[in-house]
Amino acid sequence: MQPLHRIAILAEGAFSIFGAKTAVGVLRYSRHQIVAVIDSTKSGKVVQEVLGFGGNIPIVGSVQEALLFHPDVLLIGIAPTGGQLPAAFRHAVLEAIRHRLNVWSGLHYFLSEDEELAAEAARCDVRLWDVRKPRRDLVVGSGKALHTRAYVVLTVGTDCNVGKMTVALELRNAFERLGISAAFVATGQTGILIDGEGTPLDAVPGDFMAGEVERLVLEKDAQGVDIILVEGQGSLLHPGFGPVTLALMLGAMPDDYILCTVPSRTTYRPDHRLPIPPLNQVIRLYEDVMAISYKLPKVRGIAANTSDLSDEEARAILAQYNQETGLPVCDPMRTGVENLLEVLQIGLERKRKNRVCSP
Amino acid sequence: MQPLHRIAILAEGAFSIFGAKTAVGVLRYSRHQIVAVIDSTKSGKVVQEVLGFGGNIPIVGSVQEALLFHPDVLLIGIAPTGGQLPAAFRHAVLEAIRHRLNVWSGLHYFLSEDEELAAEAARCDVRLWDVRKPRRDLVVGSGKALHTRAYVVLTVGTDCNVGKMTVALELRNAFERLGISAAFVATGQTGILIDGEGTPLDAVPGDFMAGEVERLVLEKDAQGVDIILVEGQGSLLHPGFGPVTLALMLGAMPDDYILCTVPSRTTYRPDHRLPIPPLNQVIRLYEDVMAISYKLPKVRGIAANTSDLSDEEARAILAQYNQETGLPVCDPMRTGVENLLEVLQIGLERKRKNRVCSP
Repeated sequence: MQPLHRIAILAEGAFSIFGAKTAVGVLRYSRHQIVAVIDSTKSGKVVQEVLGFGGNIPIVGSVQEALLFHPDVLLIGIAPTGGQLPAAFRHAVLEAIRHRLNVWSGLHYFLSEDEELAAEAARCDVRLWDVRKPRRDLVVGSGKALHTRAYVVLTVGTDCNVGKMTVALELRNAFERLGISAAFVATGQTGILIDGEGTPLDAVPGDFMAGEVERLVLEKDAQGVDIILVEGQGSLLHPGFGPVTLALMLGAMPDDYILCTVPSRTTYRPDHRLPIPPLNQVIRLYEDVMAISYKLPKVRGIAANTSDLSDEEARAILAQYNQETGLPVCDPMRTGVENLLEVLQIGLERKRKNRVCSP
Repeated sequence: MQPLHRIAILAEGAFSIFGAKTAVGVLRYSRHQIVAVIDSTKSGKVVQEVLGFGGNIPIVGSVQEALLFHPDVLLIGIAPTGGQLPAAFRHAVLEAIRHRLNVWSGLHYFLSEDEELAAEAARCDVRLWDVRKPRRDLVVGSGKALHTRAYVVLTVGTDCNVGKMTVALELRNAFERLGISAAFVATGQTGILIDGEGTPLDAVPGDFMAGEVERLVLEKDAQGVDIILVEGQGSLLHPGFGPVTLALMLGAMPDDYILCTVPSRTTYRPDHRLPIPPLNQVIRLYEDVMAISYKLPKVRGIAANTSDLSDEEARAILAQYNQETGLPVCDPMRTGVENLLEVLQIGLERKRKNRVCSP
């Protein structure tokens, strides 16, 4: 585990539950210490007042003000609207660099390739970390994650943007509360900014995606954790993102899956032209593909994002899914992940026994 | 179709059937005119003497000598051993540029990003085309190839390096000999150098691989061809390259497949640690995955690369595969592709009828 950082989050003009997804994710799940949020339109409040969680973390009006709380990292928690790097962003980043803050960014625009910013960062001896930029020394996957000591669970989905990162992080935290050591493997920009490491899988060249996942899973396994929760991406038959999903399956060689879904969604994002198959078909596909050659991973539970439904509708759909599939079903944000935790504890026990029995 | 070029192939010190795979592929399948091969160790011979095909194309000792045959393209037909760009390569490329030849390269080292070469190319107004470099305006796949007018056939494999490009090109040529318009979609560097266009799929970021295939298939379909033969890559359950294969399936949305295999191979290249599933399981997987949501593509025939077997062994294995699968089986280099051509003509007829019947 890397040393803990003290992070100031830049969310200028956009700090709210829906306006700053990355900032909210980092505040909810990061193990680093968030010392301040920068948004001059909400300056003087605390995070709790805006998000309904987050306690007394102050919201301040500028990088300058955030310095009072001694951050060592400026984390860019929103995407700028229009243009590559608006002047206000550039100004904030330069100010952070000049005060010796490292800068973590999930922007498409790479700060480390910006001449002015890169020169200033070199002069001040700080790191500009563009999390969307894949590393240089990539390798081809070779199935090495077939033999992890840890119990590997991959979150998969019926579509992209259905809550795969959230349920993985909720489960990681829930396991740790039980005293079971759990690791999270981040594969998308928000997950990487939350965890402080990971791979931006969607930006990795096709030949190396599975290899990147494999590398991360083996790294976590070498740390001796009991369970590795891998953040899924896309969906296996999504017409654009399916290959990224398969890379996660072949790279992580999961022992089991948690399937994520949005009940109200019937067609793949973002085009909504092609239908998502029925839940039981999706489950069978994820299980069968890997069973041909590798392990026999099962979908052990379902995480449904019901945020656009009423309490009553949500309860009904969770019950319906449970009946249709015979699996525990939850909405992590509405009901918690207790039932998934239980079923994965059984899986963890199964993995331990197999480990003992194998030569 | 782009205008035909006059190509000189650089294969210095390596021109042979096994030493210069790209050069041999281009000589065998390119529709451009190959005017000379450059290899000073074989200077004075003609291609036929070295490869057993290729007729009177002269082998010359230098770029300078190749100029006698008025090329407009220098195609780099071998990979340099050791180092990024050896001095001899640089010298040959510079000489070509100064004589106003465009340069086509499949090297990992991007000529267009080499300061000296790029400056000289700009000065001489020629193009340095690094075929491994993906284009900039990539899009996410959205299943648009579900509705092509043309009959789309994807070559798939039990592994990487089993002959997927070769059988696609042999079939393209065989269809054209019958007067049926056929297009080849190149997805690897040799295929791109042969065809003069295509996408280096292994270098495209994961999110955009399917979109690249879709774009190319739709472009060929818009040209009004009858059949589109898509060059496959990898194998669906290959632990490293599987995602690239899935991108081809989701991007091309094939009507049918030809399955390629090397009978003597039992484990995935290059590691040879994981077993390749039995042939019938591989066939079923390729068919079933797409059938869940999209089309009902079938494996219509098998192309087996038996180059490492005796005539007798080869005959036996082709007969065995035919018996096991009920499908026509050939070795394109040993027996020709006549039986695959027949079964795909039936498929083409089926597609035509469905097109007439559909609204």
